[in-house]
Amino acid sequence: MAKERPTRIVIVGGGFGGVYTAIALEKLLGHGPEAEIALISKENYLTFQPMLPEVISGSIGLVDTITPIRRLCSSTHLYTRTVERIDLERKRVIATAGFGSRQFELDYDHLVVALGNVTSFAGQPGLAEHALPFKYLGDALTLRNRAIQALEEADTEPSPEARRALLTFVVAGGGFSGVEAVAELNDFVRAAAKSFRHVEPEEIRVVLLHAQGLILPELPRSLAEFAQRILIRRGVEIKLNTRLHGATVDAALLAGGERIPARTVVSTVPSAPNPLVAALPCKKEKGRIVVDQHLEVPDYPGVWAVGDCAWILDAKTGEPCPPTAQHAIREAKCLAANIAATIRGTVRKPFAFNALGKMGSLGHRSAVAEVFGLKISGFLAWWLWRTVYLMKLPGLDRKLRVATDWTLDLLLPPDIVQLKTDKSFSIRREHFEPDEVIFREGDRGDWLYVVVEGQVDVLRSVPGRGDVTLRTLGPGECFGEIALVGESARTATVRSRSSVNLLAVDRDAFQALFTNLPPLRGFFEQLIGMRSQ
Amino acid sequence: MAKERPTRIVIVGGGFGGVYTAIALEKLLGHGPEAEIALISKENYLTFQPMLPEVISGSIGLVDTITPIRRLCSSTHLYTRTVERIDLERKRVIATAGFGSRQFELDYDHLVVALGNVTSFAGQPGLAEHALPFKYLGDALTLRNRAIQALEEADTEPSPEARRALLTFVVAGGGFSGVEAVAELNDFVRAAAKSFRHVEPEEIRVVLLHAQGLILPELPRSLAEFAQRILIRRGVEIKLNTRLHGATVDAALLAGGERIPARTVVSTVPSAPNPLVAALPCKKEKGRIVVDQHLEVPDYPGVWAVGDCAWILDAKTGEPCPPTAQHAIREAKCLAANIAATIRGTVRKPFAFNALGKMGSLGHRSAVAEVFGLKISGFLAWWLWRTVYLMKLPGLDRKLRVATDWTLDLLLPPDIVQLKTDKSFSIRREHFEPDEVIFREGDRGDWLYVVVEGQVDVLRSVPGRGDVTLRTLGPGECFGEIALVGESARTATVRSRSSVNLLAVDRDAFQALFTNLPPLRGFFEQLIGMRSQ
Repeated sequence: MAKERPTRIVIVGGGFGGVYTAIALEKLLGHGPEAEIALISKENYLTFQPMLPEVISGSIGLVDTITPIRRLCSSTHLYTRTVERIDLERKRVIATAGFGSRQFELDYDHLVVALGNVTSFAGQPGLAEHALPFKYLGDALTLRNRAIQALEEADTEPSPEARRALLTFVVAGGGFSGVEAVAELNDFVRAAAKSFRHVEPEEIRVVLLHAQGLILPELPRSLAEFAQRILIRRGVEIKLNTRLHGATVDAALLAGGERIPARTVVSTVPSAPNPLVAALPCKKEKGRIVVDQHLEVPDYPGVWAVGDCAWILDAKTGEPCPPTAQHAIREAKCLAANIAATIRGTVRKPFAFNALGKMGSLGHRSAVAEVFGLKISGFLAWWLWRTVYLMKLPGLDRKLRVATDWTLDLLLPPDIVQLKTDKSFSIRREHFEPDEVIFREGDRGDWLYVVVEGQVDVLRSVPGRGDVTLRTLGPGECFGEIALVGESARTATVRSRSSVNLLAVDRDAFQALFTNLPPLRGFFEQLIGMRSQ
Repeated sequence: MAKERPTRIVIVGGGFGGVYTAIALEKLLGHGPEAEIALISKENYLTFQPMLPEVISGSIGLVDTITPIRRLCSSTHLYTRTVERIDLERKRVIATAGFGSRQFELDYDHLVVALGNVTSFAGQPGLAEHALPFKYLGDALTLRNRAIQALEEADTEPSPEARRALLTFVVAGGGFSGVEAVAELNDFVRAAAKSFRHVEPEEIRVVLLHAQGLILPELPRSLAEFAQRILIRRGVEIKLNTRLHGATVDAALLAGGERIPARTVVSTVPSAPNPLVAALPCKKEKGRIVVDQHLEVPDYPGVWAVGDCAWILDAKTGEPCPPTAQHAIREAKCLAANIAATIRGTVRKPFAFNALGKMGSLGHRSAVAEVFGLKISGFLAWWLWRTVYLMKLPGLDRKLRVATDWTLDLLLPPDIVQLKTDKSFSIRREHFEPDEVIFREGDRGDWLYVVVEGQVDVLRSVPGRGDVTLRTLGPGECFGEIALVGESARTATVRSRSSVNLLAVDRDAFQALFTNLPPLRGFFEQLIGMRSQ
């Protein structure tokens, strides 16, 4: 084939696998006319996940755990878009529009799939509505804000029951990410609580749920036991052999039926294949794309996969590679070399890599690590953790910023400002288990509810007769509209009859939609007229 | 009156006036049983506005311009709530609920109104929908993200027209806040553009609009002229005697009829009285609460006002006090002393204060200042600006953090990460001037539109006949639903016939609402059936 145009290489996914493939390709293919490299990523930055938990406590500046992709691979065309569809037949990637509304398409000769996996709460009632995931920078920020808001509320809340839920923090998942998250969250809420006049340290409860008999299954037993002891000493309550089954607005529901009142529930466990990967017609193993030893997808020449979304067998051990950043970076280098070899017609190499070690921070100057087979714990492991991750953090400016943050953090109290970004309208989903109060007569009315699934009872207290059921509502029916239209207090109590999923629409969204859409206005006017009789 | 319970002092508003009143009251009344101080603030932090522009460029860490209120006045009861109503008759403040839905009320003996003013775009078409305000931390963050997104889009945008709008940044208002914002924004986009491969420095246009003949009317003529020269040399285009009249999604509309294509329009001009202040029955001057020389509201003993929402005449000069942080802090001290004097039955003092000086940063190591009558400009003024504001920044930890930020900033390139927080559903308002295209046939369909005001034409191109008008839609009518339901491309072009206000509902919000609300589902099924014939 006569070389008329550069080879088009499109990488989808801006995690470690994708970005390091672009970096390696730039080095191998240079900035010359041989190839054109494009990277499509949802965000314009690479998140350094190992440091994410420190965002909770604010010991690292919010943006210091992330590195602008443009700075890491400056000759790559970066498209900050969400990939919508991959068409292997036509060799084309379709992505969302940006500011404008034109759809965006990119043709490729080589496609590198580096889409990682996604958080999925499917099958766990109430988790999508009320549990916080912990995977992206936005998640860490949300968790931090939630924790601060819970302390704010507890500080002025008189009801002991409500206080208990506000001051209980549940983290599900005892792997590296759950342990690091619970350690930082625990340190943070206990230190921050000192700034709140009416919150006593002993009121705070931080719970870690883990499905197996010992946390950190990735590590040798002795290290995991060390970590467990350290966490317990710091005040974390560890519930072993326990799974998170579901969540409501103010409780974590455990698999055995136990209910822990908690306003803040974090789940680090569930991850599912990216729907884009699931939709690909190629062969998969446990949801991950099967590749050959050169990281190319069998039967689809020119299609490659790397990182957490790829099922890669180590050429030496024959074992599947674990989904870690360490592996993704090595895979990316091998993959880039094999693409270059394919373009130039030279020999490809199989992928093999011995992991250097594993580390987990326990916060507060303690950690556990296994490096080159050596087990290390406590302060030395923590020092190692910081040093290694600082070295690995991409970009010199980031290294400097994080080193400074850490230094300041030794001197300064934790930050308790709550950072909100404005939202003018809000629609959210809520989940209730049977017999929970959704709102009470006399409460302030800020939300209109639509029943999506299940049934609720509308009750009114009648002197001498207690609560009387006015009506029972099911899917497609609304409640809460009277207080919302009249700006008055709730005129009735609503309680879930079964397990219920709701759509909650706030006052502003309600006003905007329902005053401007005549069919809705008509519907609600009629409904309110009927119900207020 | 026998002293049976502590005097209840309630402060509403968490700006400089409110927070410094609490600080001064704590000092005067101590932590004893004499008085109970409560502060109601929307945010749990105090924003240090003079440093807000530096958040745009990232030269100060996001949260370093704000200080947790709890740290500043630790004996005050802080309620992080939005005040809803002030009842002067019953001496009661009513605020929103927190996590729960119970309304929240606080009775007072002394009320300090420190509600500042609010941004208001009333009467300027399209500003509420498309212009960015610049008053709170969230605004600075939004502006920063918008600027980065515009560069991201421009980097991959082929149309020269669309590029022009993406790379033009318009700031309205040549007072201190507008000048500081435009200076930082200009420095930032020009420095950040270097990381984008397809953005040329000469394509970037930064425009400052000012209604008078010279910017910075607060300063002496020579300093204002100096500032103007510096900004022009750095590439800011200054349009004098020009007002921003309105905005659309991709243009700033000037009062004379000129239209500047721009995706990013910032307005620092409009501020209106807080609606809570407007609703108070007491006497006002230019929307500000008239107080006596002791800062108490005439005819309402026990009600006080301070800061931007108060109309205060200086006891020495007889001039009204300007709305600056400098004045608010001094007023707060005087007010606190007078409340203490009232409680203790001692003598009150009238308010008088000579401002120390005025300063404005021009970014990039230049500034203008007038201090004790001296005029200073250039590097010296900039050094003074940083030193004075660093000293004034509340909290030692903040001082240290900002000093460090500034040091790093001298060494490191600007940060270009775009920080998004997740929103699952979105409803927004949009404004179009006559004859603008809302979307085009073949575009991707992500939004459903409801006409709020005005009319739009729905057009389809017919071979040989050009664009044919299918129908004209008015208030209460919808368009865009076909592409949204079928996930297909737009089947028609929609253009504004008059000036139009729209409500735009995104795909997720549409799906959630319209699949769960039967009257809406019925309505849209019918509509789509009718229109697709």
